[in-house]
Amino acid sequence: MQILSEAIVDQVIQPRQQATHKGDFGRVLIVGGNAHFGGAAIIAASAAVYAGAGLVTVATDSHNHAPLHARLPEAMVIDSQRSDLIDAVHQATVVVIGPGLGDDEVTLERVLSAVTAQQTLVIDGSAITLYAANQPALPQAHIIWTPHQMEWQRLSGIAIADQTPETSAIAAAKLPGIVVAKSHRTTIFAGTDSYQNPVGSAALATGGSGDTLAGIIGAFNAQFGAHVTSTLAAVYAHSDISDQLAKTQFVTLPTAIIAQLPQYMAIHANK
Amino acid sequence: MQILSEAIVDQVIQPRQQATHKGDFGRVLIVGGNAHFGGAAIIAASAAVYAGAGLVTVATDSHNHAPLHARLPEAMVIDSQRSDLIDAVHQATVVVIGPGLGDDEVTLERVLSAVTAQQTLVIDGSAITLYAANQPALPQAHIIWTPHQMEWQRLSGIAIADQTPETSAIAAAKLPGIVVAKSHRTTIFAGTDSYQNPVGSAALATGGSGDTLAGIIGAFNAQFGAHVTSTLAAVYAHSDISDQLAKTQFVTLPTAIIAQLPQYMAIHANK
Amino acid sequence: MQILSEAIVDQVIQPRQQATHKGDFGRVLIVGGNAHFGGAAIIAASAAVYAGAGLVTVATDSHNHAPLHARLPEAMVIDSQRSDLIDAVHQATVVVIGPGLGDDEVTLERVLSAVTAQQTLVIDGSAITLYAANQPALPQAHIIWTPHQMEWQRLSGIAIADQTPETSAIAAAKLPGIVVAKSHRTTIFAGTDSYQNPVGSAALATGGSGDTLAGIIGAFNAQFGAHVTSTLAAVYAHSDISDQLAKTQFVTLPTAIIAQLPQYMAIHANK
Amino acid sequence: MQILSEAIVDQVIQPRQQATHKGDFGRVLIVGGNAHFGGAAIIAASAAVYAGAGLVTVATDSHNHAPLHARLPEAMVIDSQRSDLIDAVHQATVVVIGPGLGDDEVTLERVLSAVTAQQTLVIDGSAITLYAANQPALPQAHIIWTPHQMEWQRLSGIAIADQTPETSAIAAAKLPGIVVAKSHRTTIFAGTDSYQNPVGSAALATGGSGDTLAGIIGAFNAQFGAHVTSTLAAVYAHSDISDQLAKTQFVTLPTAIIAQLPQYMAIHANK
Repeated sequence: MQILSEAIVDQVIQPRQQATHKGDFGRVLIVGGNAHFGGAAIIAASAAVYAGAGLVTVATDSHNHAPLHARLPEAMVIDSQRSDLIDAVHQATVVVIGPGLGDDEVTLERVLSAVTAQQTLVIDGSAITLYAANQPALPQAHIIWTPHQMEWQRLSGIAIADQTPETSAIAAAKLPGIVVAKSHRTTIFAGTDSYQNPVGSAALATGGSGDTLAGIIGAFNAQFGAHVTSTLAAVYAHSDISDQLAKTQFVTLPTAIIAQLPQYMAIHANK
Repeated sequence: MQILSEAIVDQVIQPRQQATHKGDFGRVLIVGGNAHFGGAAIIAASAAVYAGAGLVTVATDSHNHAPLHARLPEAMVIDSQRSDLIDAVHQATVVVIGPGLGDDEVTLERVLSAVTAQQTLVIDGSAITLYAANQPALPQAHIIWTPHQMEWQRLSGIAIADQTPETSAIAAAKLPGIVVAKSHRTTIFAGTDSYQNPVGSAALATGGSGDTLAGIIGAFNAQFGAHVTSTLAAVYAHSDISDQLAKTQFVTLPTAIIAQLPQYMAIHANK
Repeated sequence: MQILSEAIVDQVIQPRQQATHKGDFGRVLIVGGNAHFGGAAIIAASAAVYAGAGLVTVATDSHNHAPLHARLPEAMVIDSQRSDLIDAVHQATVVVIGPGLGDDEVTLERVLSAVTAQQTLVIDGSAITLYAANQPALPQAHIIWTPHQMEWQRLSGIAIADQTPETSAIAAAKLPGIVVAKSHRTTIFAGTDSYQNPVGSAALATGGSGDTLAGIIGAFNAQFGAHVTSTLAAVYAHSDISDQLAKTQFVTLPTAIIAQLPQYMAIHANK
Repeated sequence: MQILSEAIVDQVIQPRQQATHKGDFGRVLIVGGNAHFGGAAIIAASAAVYAGAGLVTVATDSHNHAPLHARLPEAMVIDSQRSDLIDAVHQATVVVIGPGLGDDEVTLERVLSAVTAQQTLVIDGSAITLYAANQPALPQAHIIWTPHQMEWQRLSGIAIADQTPETSAIAAAKLPGIVVAKSHRTTIFAGTDSYQNPVGSAALATGGSGDTLAGIIGAFNAQFGAHVTSTLAAVYAHSDISDQLAKTQFVTLPTAIIAQLPQYMAIHANK
């Protein structure tokens, strides 16, 4: 088990090449937000935009289009129930499915069947619960799972009380891709390697923290490639920003963390 | 009559245990916001989120879903007219009913009949007026009433001019739970004890102040348990933040107070 | 012609009496905002809230309900096409009609016929144009007209090029109430008195400045009574805030001015 | 090829004449924002408002009305599918067509046929792609084209790899008006003159940067006349603000740049 440090962020976040355009920094598609949980998709999309993804599109319930644009005009929106979801999946560098998806099994299966091998797929939140229940076929793709403890119980079969780095590593090894097992001390499993995040606190124990992290993971993978290190850096950065804010804030809300991303990334890009 | 001081805030707001998750900090359900008064529910929900509730859901008129998400993506939303209101009540640690509820007697009765003994129920605003008019059956639960002077007149039968700590104490003793009788010097009645809030000013005399307090009471009860002290701390904190802002602001608007909550709570948690 | 100074603001804005509640600071009803000009009503309502009105309600086209709540949860909303408009007029201390009203002559006439003698009526923007065209009967009430130069031409019959303090005074004397003739140097006519505003600049020459002023006039009249001095103070304060912002901002947008109101009023209340 | 410098901004942005009103600073009409790309129109309109246009109207899909008002109450809105689009075109000083327009060829043609010789027409984003595909008749008007590299390929027929100042100049000379060929080092072609923008960085390589620039170009042309220098100053200002923000922000998002416009313009107006 390796313990992460600020070095992973300094390594991943590099100054941008100058003769570039937005397409060079990736397209992130967020799929989520049913009629009840629209905020989750808005949070994930906001995190992706502020973390530097070149273009961000949200496939969500039509109820969420207006609030998404009102908060985040930088993002584009499509209706997750329409056929253009498949086109949007095909155009994406990274697909993040799950924030606020609820029980929309149909959309999960449509996305899983459309993702292709060169793409990165972040499976988060409700999408993990749906996958655990129904085990639909997974695409050949770079998959990143981001379960919290209860979702990890559903996905791995390991009761929360029994989740240890050792038991989780065995379960993670049976899944394709990277597993970000979120908890007070988040552990990341990638192949035979495992990493522990030493930062973060209970100031993150508030609705939307997971959606924020999913968006950052999406944006870092879209921009920086290198799935393992990008994912590690996203986990560390999310907690590190929270720790800095927690010096003066009892809870570190998603919108507060997201607002810090451009500054945080500038500091680490220039180190 | 005990006079509250900053000590109640220092006592109630404690640093978070680290090996925790959002579920440990409670689920607050805000029930309110008809087609005219949606802002009241949005304010109460915002206060609950910024005061650290683990998860916040708003049951409100469908017209308010988009503006809620646009302002506060951290909250979830359900339609207060649908059957899932009952499920949401069952999942809540604390239910706050009333901000902007208007004359929706049906929703009040649905909530009152669904709340159970382990839950905390904050009855605020229009819900007090509706209760006073129709006297529906109250649940076995930890009840907190938050009337302003006119609502207290309706609920207690005591004309505003006759409301004194003594007369109010007698009326409060006939109601189950805690009564927060809001006025220039808010008085809180809990069993045979009474407490007076020495802080706050007319800078709070603006639409939405009551909704803000209801949300803070909800979040403090959800996180910190101990209904009486949590409620006292919420009343004190709300006024204390206003007093600090009022040094430089003629009115201390709900959104301004809410924005200060994470900082205020951090200061008191670390004392 | 008297030249206004900061003294009018110091005189009008007084510290709040402490044993008060929001009802003591007046109810402002904003009537305006059709399907195209909803922003005007939102701006006027925001100005009224931030300038300290106790309660603010907006009667507007249903398209504007969601954005109003998203920006300003402190305000209540009703549909201007419904019968409850008349109830809202009856409950108001001050009615501001006009911001973004467009060609809605029916709503203007409904409001004019419902306002009563104790109330203050601010007639702004499109409502002035509609009145000038159709001359509906005016209520017995405290009326404040806030025309810009073209609206003053329509209302007074004086071409813009011929508008001088002298010609305008004669036309204003034929109208009931106070006339705020807005221009680079706004002139206010009240009975036989006239006042000139020496502050403000072309940084205010941007869409929404008039709506902002209308909201401040509404809030000052609702809180401070004394129609003439409240109106003078509102005009001066609006321009004075702009002048302070214009030191560092090329245009002083409505939302920037509105955000300064609580601070500005606190400074002058304590002088 | 002339290299632009800060002098172009100092030259164009002049202190406002004082005896003026909002009509003197131009009416900008933004035409764009279909059901998926509403944010683009909101961004362009926000840039135009913050850059000092006297009045800004957005003709857009009805889905975008609420989020536009929620973010930017200073703007007016019309439905781009309705007949009043033509009236709005006739009233505009500058029409900006394209941000988020998508494949709405009908609206492009309606606008092109309504614009008249005294007006300025900025053709941006999707409108360039549509024009390149269908070559509808262009109006006699002051036209400003703002293609990014792929749009310039479509419009000029020059593959991105072959786009040089020399090849682009030849293609630009065949188009009426000014061409702003956006890239890492944006080049502007106006008649036989060409200019290069030496500032800006990859921090601008994010969704919405082009919409922001289109709105600034619209506002500068509406206020300052002199199409070539206004356009040059807009390009320089947009990149210069980004460069200043990029010292502390990894990406310089549209909303961050827009918020700086009033301050940036004040500094340069007073030089």
